[in-house]
Amino acid sequence: MKYQLIVIGGGPAGYTAAEIAAKAGLKVLLIERCNLGGVCLNEGCIPTKTLLYSAKTLDNARFAAKYGVTVGDASIDLPKVVSRKNKVVRKLVLGIKAKLANAGVTVLQAEAYIVDSHHVRCDKEVYQCDKLLACTGSETIIPSIEGIQNIDYWTHREALNCSEAPATMVVVGGGVIGMEFAAYFNSLGTKVTVIEMQNEILGGMDSELSALLRADYTKKGVKFLLNTSVTALSQDEEGITVTYKCGDAVEHLAVDKLLMSVGRRPVNQGFGLENLGLKLTERGHPEVDAQMQSSQAGVYICGDLTGFSLLAHTAVREAEVAVNHILGRTDEMSYRAIPGVVYTNPEFAGVGATEESLTAKGIAYKTIKIPMAFSGRFVAENEGVNGVCKLLLAEDTTVLGAHVLGNPASEIITLAGMAIEQRLTAHQWMRIVVPHPTVGEIFREALASI
Amino acid sequence: MKYQLIVIGGGPAGYTAAEIAAKAGLKVLLIERCNLGGVCLNEGCIPTKTLLYSAKTLDNARFAAKYGVTVGDASIDLPKVVSRKNKVVRKLVLGIKAKLANAGVTVLQAEAYIVDSHHVRCDKEVYQCDKLLACTGSETIIPSIEGIQNIDYWTHREALNCSEAPATMVVVGGGVIGMEFAAYFNSLGTKVTVIEMQNEILGGMDSELSALLRADYTKKGVKFLLNTSVTALSQDEEGITVTYKCGDAVEHLAVDKLLMSVGRRPVNQGFGLENLGLKLTERGHPEVDAQMQSSQAGVYICGDLTGFSLLAHTAVREAEVAVNHILGRTDEMSYRAIPGVVYTNPEFAGVGATEESLTAKGIAYKTIKIPMAFSGRFVAENEGVNGVCKLLLAEDTTVLGAHVLGNPASEIITLAGMAIEQRLTAHQWMRIVVPHPTVGEIFREALASI
Repeated sequence: MKYQLIVIGGGPAGYTAAEIAAKAGLKVLLIERCNLGGVCLNEGCIPTKTLLYSAKTLDNARFAAKYGVTVGDASIDLPKVVSRKNKVVRKLVLGIKAKLANAGVTVLQAEAYIVDSHHVRCDKEVYQCDKLLACTGSETIIPSIEGIQNIDYWTHREALNCSEAPATMVVVGGGVIGMEFAAYFNSLGTKVTVIEMQNEILGGMDSELSALLRADYTKKGVKFLLNTSVTALSQDEEGITVTYKCGDAVEHLAVDKLLMSVGRRPVNQGFGLENLGLKLTERGHPEVDAQMQSSQAGVYICGDLTGFSLLAHTAVREAEVAVNHILGRTDEMSYRAIPGVVYTNPEFAGVGATEESLTAKGIAYKTIKIPMAFSGRFVAENEGVNGVCKLLLAEDTTVLGAHVLGNPASEIITLAGMAIEQRLTAHQWMRIVVPHPTVGEIFREALASI
Repeated sequence: MKYQLIVIGGGPAGYTAAEIAAKAGLKVLLIERCNLGGVCLNEGCIPTKTLLYSAKTLDNARFAAKYGVTVGDASIDLPKVVSRKNKVVRKLVLGIKAKLANAGVTVLQAEAYIVDSHHVRCDKEVYQCDKLLACTGSETIIPSIEGIQNIDYWTHREALNCSEAPATMVVVGGGVIGMEFAAYFNSLGTKVTVIEMQNEILGGMDSELSALLRADYTKKGVKFLLNTSVTALSQDEEGITVTYKCGDAVEHLAVDKLLMSVGRRPVNQGFGLENLGLKLTERGHPEVDAQMQSSQAGVYICGDLTGFSLLAHTAVREAEVAVNHILGRTDEMSYRAIPGVVYTNPEFAGVGATEESLTAKGIAYKTIKIPMAFSGRFVAENEGVNGVCKLLLAEDTTVLGAHVLGNPASEIITLAGMAIEQRLTAHQWMRIVVPHPTVGEIFREALASI
């Protein structure tokens, strides 16, 4: 069988690319070994947000008195929460299936093996293609800690399906995934300890706001061990014993569960990627140009497999760019305004440059930092909760970065993303009217303060 | 005393203008007869949103089981809710006071009277100024209905301070204010009837989505009488009797309370505005140019007094434009992307053109309409709740209007506002990366569907 485009991997990059290409009239084959939607939809972004919303609903009920609402005892029914999560995922997977079917994409549930840039083998069949897009996603890194092979640890996958909150838990790795699960289990009443090797959680995000979020969760009962690495693990009937090291001090901690969330790495083995002889970057990832094309003409790499940002929304945009290039439409990938969100409560989001990244590059910038309480709506909806909005401007006031700690950071950061991608100056941004009262007004308040 | 700028009215336009001008070095006098912050802060936008958030907290607790959270009986403590509302207002008024003081604005609590374009009298003192900005806001329209003088009706002011929910209530006027209070009292358990003269609630907003919101509140128990006008009112010990007419039919309804919310009109009497001899528009409002300057050089009119949009965020932007002009900075007012929000639950927001306005102008457009369920996050956080996102595009795909029914419409509509103000085409907007999963992604989903 011959296709104009074969897509390997049915995550956000894959299903986006396949749909656009097929809608544009190309004959498209999408090969996915597991579930359509990829990690993001099946065991990542969507299921975690569904669980976190239940946790938020619980927290809101608990703290309703702050808003004059009297609520009887609130508790969470975890099997029900997990079953709702599964229902949400099923609904969205069905949505993607329907979209792909409508667009006329042929979907194959199978392991793909790249023979060369024009041939992909599945089971015993070889499919021919004009263009090839590989977007196989990423997988959880399991570090080689002493004793880990004897431990019944969790990754995000098991944590998502937890139907009884553990009494105590260690989260190894204080990145986005680690923090979201720490927040979730904290709401469920689990005594959570986060162990992070670096000197701050959420590496890559604004470190000042990361520290504020950490302080907030410390108050809520989460314990953080920074500059700390896990050196050994063991398990007996009582639970898991974690041996960790901070400086020269070696300590032990006994817990019921351990969540491994030190990071993710691209899935680049087992599907014949090596047969393409692609040029690799210094870090070992396939090199791509601004149209997501690899060193091999007609072969495109998108999503986590590029090793760039490991975010679903980056993958989606990369897929659009790749397909637009295949279709002869002018487009190029920009990484200037890729937002990052931590769905804790409060949410923490950032887009564009951080102070750390600008300093590292020696770029001069001006910082504006105001409390979220400068937004009337934030005050109305966040009793006794603080937050910070930070904007980073170039010397000509072009917006370089935006960082927000406070709900709903995830939704309002989009506005800063558009401003940054459009290279707006403070003055240009100020010309845009924002409804009052909204939390999104906080950016105007920040800009007005200069 | 001589000032470079005298501002009459301390609402959003007034305090914004005064602060910017003073920070730029002008000697500024701000005269406000009542409270700083105006209607918006003291008895409008902010207090309603504070009450509505308490109502939302109550609703969230009631429906928590949808998300696997078990909550005991939930009830609202209205005196506590009102007292928190007052606290929020006080905090924000203090914030404005502090900002004005920091900027060096002289604030006078008094009635102002314009003698001429360079002289304003307060009590017995006459203050001289180079420039004058009038932004006296608006007031509730009380229609001359038979018997109204004998009725103890509410305006938004009394409704805001209600400490015991009435059993039954009529809301006269289904505009934004009427709908927000209808939503509030509906959450409190009041049996609400909305009487609207037009054939749909929320005139000026997208009428299709307005009808959906109406259907939603009908399900929640609110009764709507469209194409209906109140012809007479009477009151006895039992309550208020409302006589209304729909077509030829005349009916009566007995209720405990009646909220008058048929609209607002500019406050243009009683402060000597007539002494300026300003040129008026056909509708009788002071004519202003794109810099908010009236026909009298050096006299600026901003906010509700212009009779344009009667929205706080419009007023703020107009004030910035006026002061920038005074300061010799290039700027001009644009009404292309003024968002409107109805803070019901779900929220309803729109920005830019409506189908109705485009049709009236004979402008060709293309409609994209998708369910909010195309956003994974919306599905995760809105169990059993529907919503719609509608985009209106010009023939060259420039975005003309955006309309959203579904939470948090108020916060995500800002993104569409920026796109419209920047005159982005669908293709340009698609280049902007939006974090996944967010409700804000719905716009990308809509654009991707064309």
